[in-house]
Amino acid sequence: MNKIRVSVVGASGYTGFELVRILLKHPDVVITNLAVRSDVGRPYSELFPALKGRCDLICSTIDVPKITDESDVIFFGLPHKTSMDIIPKFLDSGRKIIDLSADYRLNNEETYKYAYGIDHADKGHLSEFVYGLPEFNRAKIRQTNTIANPGCFPTGIELALMPVLQSGLIKTDSIIVDSKTGISGGGKTPKPAFHFPKCNENVSAYKVASHQHEPEIEQELSKMAGKPVDIVFVPHLIPMTRGIYSTIYTELIEAVTITELQNIYQKQYQNEPFVRVMDTGKIPEINHVTNTNFCDIGMVISGSRLILISAIDNLIKGASGQAVQNMNVMMGLDETLGLN
Amino acid sequence: MNKIRVSVVGASGYTGFELVRILLKHPDVVITNLAVRSDVGRPYSELFPALKGRCDLICSTIDVPKITDESDVIFFGLPHKTSMDIIPKFLDSGRKIIDLSADYRLNNEETYKYAYGIDHADKGHLSEFVYGLPEFNRAKIRQTNTIANPGCFPTGIELALMPVLQSGLIKTDSIIVDSKTGISGGGKTPKPAFHFPKCNENVSAYKVASHQHEPEIEQELSKMAGKPVDIVFVPHLIPMTRGIYSTIYTELIEAVTITELQNIYQKQYQNEPFVRVMDTGKIPEINHVTNTNFCDIGMVISGSRLILISAIDNLIKGASGQAVQNMNVMMGLDETLGLN
Amino acid sequence: MNKIRVSVVGASGYTGFELVRILLKHPDVVITNLAVRSDVGRPYSELFPALKGRCDLICSTIDVPKITDESDVIFFGLPHKTSMDIIPKFLDSGRKIIDLSADYRLNNEETYKYAYGIDHADKGHLSEFVYGLPEFNRAKIRQTNTIANPGCFPTGIELALMPVLQSGLIKTDSIIVDSKTGISGGGKTPKPAFHFPKCNENVSAYKVASHQHEPEIEQELSKMAGKPVDIVFVPHLIPMTRGIYSTIYTELIEAVTITELQNIYQKQYQNEPFVRVMDTGKIPEINHVTNTNFCDIGMVISGSRLILISAIDNLIKGASGQAVQNMNVMMGLDETLGLN
Amino acid sequence: MNKIRVSVVGASGYTGFELVRILLKHPDVVITNLAVRSDVGRPYSELFPALKGRCDLICSTIDVPKITDESDVIFFGLPHKTSMDIIPKFLDSGRKIIDLSADYRLNNEETYKYAYGIDHADKGHLSEFVYGLPEFNRAKIRQTNTIANPGCFPTGIELALMPVLQSGLIKTDSIIVDSKTGISGGGKTPKPAFHFPKCNENVSAYKVASHQHEPEIEQELSKMAGKPVDIVFVPHLIPMTRGIYSTIYTELIEAVTITELQNIYQKQYQNEPFVRVMDTGKIPEINHVTNTNFCDIGMVISGSRLILISAIDNLIKGASGQAVQNMNVMMGLDETLGLN
Repeated sequence: MNKIRVSVVGASGYTGFELVRILLKHPDVVITNLAVRSDVGRPYSELFPALKGRCDLICSTIDVPKITDESDVIFFGLPHKTSMDIIPKFLDSGRKIIDLSADYRLNNEETYKYAYGIDHADKGHLSEFVYGLPEFNRAKIRQTNTIANPGCFPTGIELALMPVLQSGLIKTDSIIVDSKTGISGGGKTPKPAFHFPKCNENVSAYKVASHQHEPEIEQELSKMAGKPVDIVFVPHLIPMTRGIYSTIYTELIEAVTITELQNIYQKQYQNEPFVRVMDTGKIPEINHVTNTNFCDIGMVISGSRLILISAIDNLIKGASGQAVQNMNVMMGLDETLGLN
Repeated sequence: MNKIRVSVVGASGYTGFELVRILLKHPDVVITNLAVRSDVGRPYSELFPALKGRCDLICSTIDVPKITDESDVIFFGLPHKTSMDIIPKFLDSGRKIIDLSADYRLNNEETYKYAYGIDHADKGHLSEFVYGLPEFNRAKIRQTNTIANPGCFPTGIELALMPVLQSGLIKTDSIIVDSKTGISGGGKTPKPAFHFPKCNENVSAYKVASHQHEPEIEQELSKMAGKPVDIVFVPHLIPMTRGIYSTIYTELIEAVTITELQNIYQKQYQNEPFVRVMDTGKIPEINHVTNTNFCDIGMVISGSRLILISAIDNLIKGASGQAVQNMNVMMGLDETLGLN
Repeated sequence: MNKIRVSVVGASGYTGFELVRILLKHPDVVITNLAVRSDVGRPYSELFPALKGRCDLICSTIDVPKITDESDVIFFGLPHKTSMDIIPKFLDSGRKIIDLSADYRLNNEETYKYAYGIDHADKGHLSEFVYGLPEFNRAKIRQTNTIANPGCFPTGIELALMPVLQSGLIKTDSIIVDSKTGISGGGKTPKPAFHFPKCNENVSAYKVASHQHEPEIEQELSKMAGKPVDIVFVPHLIPMTRGIYSTIYTELIEAVTITELQNIYQKQYQNEPFVRVMDTGKIPEINHVTNTNFCDIGMVISGSRLILISAIDNLIKGASGQAVQNMNVMMGLDETLGLN
Repeated sequence: MNKIRVSVVGASGYTGFELVRILLKHPDVVITNLAVRSDVGRPYSELFPALKGRCDLICSTIDVPKITDESDVIFFGLPHKTSMDIIPKFLDSGRKIIDLSADYRLNNEETYKYAYGIDHADKGHLSEFVYGLPEFNRAKIRQTNTIANPGCFPTGIELALMPVLQSGLIKTDSIIVDSKTGISGGGKTPKPAFHFPKCNENVSAYKVASHQHEPEIEQELSKMAGKPVDIVFVPHLIPMTRGIYSTIYTELIEAVTITELQNIYQKQYQNEPFVRVMDTGKIPEINHVTNTNFCDIGMVISGSRLILISAIDNLIKGASGQAVQNMNVMMGLDETLGLN
């Protein structure tokens, strides 16, 4: 079989790097272009010396004809607000497109403006993109050419909440999500908030109840619940590099046993290669999922409260790993290729 | 003025060490005995080389007559379940006693058994101890000889919640507390959960909705609210040494502005030397309070939710600093001595 | 082709876990036994929840007939001083044996006693084991059944020094090695030195000029130099989980240019899949090699001094990755299988 | 007694903050001006929220007449290359001046140009500044108005080496210094090298044998030895916030016992409040000196090698603590004021 030709546009950030690292291990893929906005002409392994001897490609400009000509699948690792300016140039090509930015995740331009503070530059295509959460949208992913890869926080939170929202077991207006993220979630550009002496030996909440991922999460949860879901979402920066740990507090509508809940989750995820439901009494930890595409989910009932906990690697299941999973689904491959 | 003679019984743990470090800087104090259960006869600075040249005392046995004879104030840094076996021997001495363990914090022996799993060994004295949270119990602290120093989690959580419970602004049956603690909270004894390669680059919830501090917090909050307060409390271990960061989710009974709330907190804490109310829009961070006796409190309103955030150094305001603050109050000293 | 049947004896430590993780990705291997001294009967994924859904094996006793019967290759992840009591029972089986402990690395029983403080329990077999550093002993590794896998410090130090010792470019009596190791090098058992609050925000030298790996390093370097090599070796614990970074100070016998040196290293390692010689002016960093089997080597000349720097992941190239590399060589496989 | 009026010019960096934190605890000092280049007009406690409630000063411009008028002592926390443009404006005022930058540490303008790559802008005053290492220059510090406060690396390295150089015990042409520094040494400005995900779980040597502190160290050591001292200096970044740990490899000229050496160090430092000589067999650790003005020194003899190890807090004994110690000496105060 011919290898799938893959390009990455916006390859110089952490998600780009993680994507390349995964694609290099993928048995059915060949990387043809690593396009960047700066650093053109430099070997990619000079940007990321960890790849010395593993990747010989030279960073290239975003040359639309060349990239479309040489690719079956094009990943976009650009920042949000930039992605929507560049992706439209690739949409007529018929190539499979997977956008890791937030630009095509929201179905509604008003919500986009609310969340990101600017008008969407490509409103016409907003409705075409499929939200790339394979565990719930696999059929649509198989049939589309355009994927909006879910955000890092949304992935772990949605996978934890979907089964109980689908079952109608919890109230939809009193969900509280307390997330703890590693610093790599802030990207590769040095900023005061991510300066080592500032982050180390520190914890801080940020964008309290005003993070741009909250509308994305509510949009997807509402679809699942069949009615509006309202969450309070507070992310925290903690002194580690990778991982998102979300502790989710919900109210049960009626009493349910931990065994019944376990059954619901086990049934939902029994055939999913990348979701692991913890046994009763076991709690997820970040270092069980670090460097993997797993999402681990645990649950505890306390009175009428159901506490759900999920753990993912923000750069893998929360970004590049899920993007490759989506590619595998789109191309009809074994969904785990490159991800084990 | 004669210096206050102080002994520490159970000086070999982290809270003991922190206590000694503070007492050495206290201008009105002389340490007379550092009593331990093991390491008797070794110089204290050998146990804690950071104190080489600062503290020349030799660790001694728990010699009740000698210690009571040579002390005006006796601190107990023993583990809970041990403290209640040893403290009764000192109670007739008339010395000021400050217990940093959990053994005399709960007013009720049934609650103690529920929280700590064993019968209380000194039930008769349970009701005599004053809960040493100076910001709310200062008058009682001045008049007692026996202080139960609050737990690390309870201190930050109670200081954040007391003003709104006192004002009757929030519902008392839907309070959710998500705390993040540094590893020193687990003590000085090596255990798998506190092994560096296990904690580093990791986050994990533990004792989910079943932590032994939950009854203590509920007891104190209920007194303040004048009715039963029920919380859901989930502590998390995060990879830092010191600090507790608590994010508290509450429901407002009726609408209140952020300015009104700020006023309530400012008024409550305006004369408190160790509680800082953050300006509107500012969020506490652990590294603003590290190595200090401060508790920083921030607040955000989101719809009908009030989110309170507090940050303390678990070993200082959460333990030894607060113990010294209690001593200062008991002895009629400037409350900040040794603590700035 | 039939898969190679592999067992791990002593699978419950960090090197055992890392070995299993690598073997699970190895396309030509099937794990048949995970034998342990404690935890018999428990699922291996319970000991290491990161492997939930990846490894279904149950920990078994060290059953010599069963293990030899069901294995083509047997890895030993036991502690040193234990390995030499157990390995002899397997030696007659004719199976390929790879010992990750230090017990068969030293050629001489006196040196063993000097380094490890006890008499060797299996002196008769000491001379039979081949030192498993494939970059220099590949031919012997192909022909033996018994491999002593090199120590973590020795691997990075020897790969950095071998080329200049072979070339006779440096003095052999004035080599200074300053190594910095992550805490996982101390193993999985909690100890005071590896307690998070002790290691975090700390650095400490230990076993200064008296580490048990020093004789191993000198033995191997002396063979290469053709005369006794004497080093001063000072390891340091630093607050990270994985990695060994060695800064090596040597004296040049006569002047040599950086280009000449680069040529020597490039020539030596050009066909080595796991040694990367840094370009002139580039310095290795631990995070370029984390989670890989690479050893990165850099060099700087300052007057008559040659400074060599090497970086490895202590658990992979410094232990389990190198063990699998040895297995691949022994079994005639592509040397990189399972390791990319 | 009237309080000493102190100003800090260049107060917005880490050393400025640490200086203010120490000065606030100093019983004989009042801070009159905190002058900055940016952030003029903002409360200092807004730049450093840890000081909320502790420091009410507003950041001011560098107003030479006002600052000289209102100060007895002026500290300069400006970057090197900037300090020498601003300090000359203050030199005629007769005030005590303590420069924490590198600009007046080198006695020779050619060395300055070599180390810092530009011409010195105030050559005429280079020879007037006294090198502020109180342990060796106390008499001169008492008599001068202008202090060049030693660099962070030089402080710990010089204190470790001075006694054996003074005694003529070691060779002066074969000293190797391997230092490990926390990230705060890189300053407060975010840069790629100090970005959390880059530093965490990493170690890297930098400016190998070419660091700008090397000439400063050699200058001071040469004065002590009475002949040129040549060192090889390799600093390393390690994942912690504070501290410098230097492992120093020297060659003994003739045999000496560890007891003799201990005696030399004990005698040299017996009256020094901030240098602690470790007992034989004890090794310094960073966390014994964190947040203190101590320099801990340990020593090991291995054959003809003498290994010296020193540990300091880079922001205190390596910068602001030493600056306050110098002020105390200059003003005839107890040298430890503010520093315990």
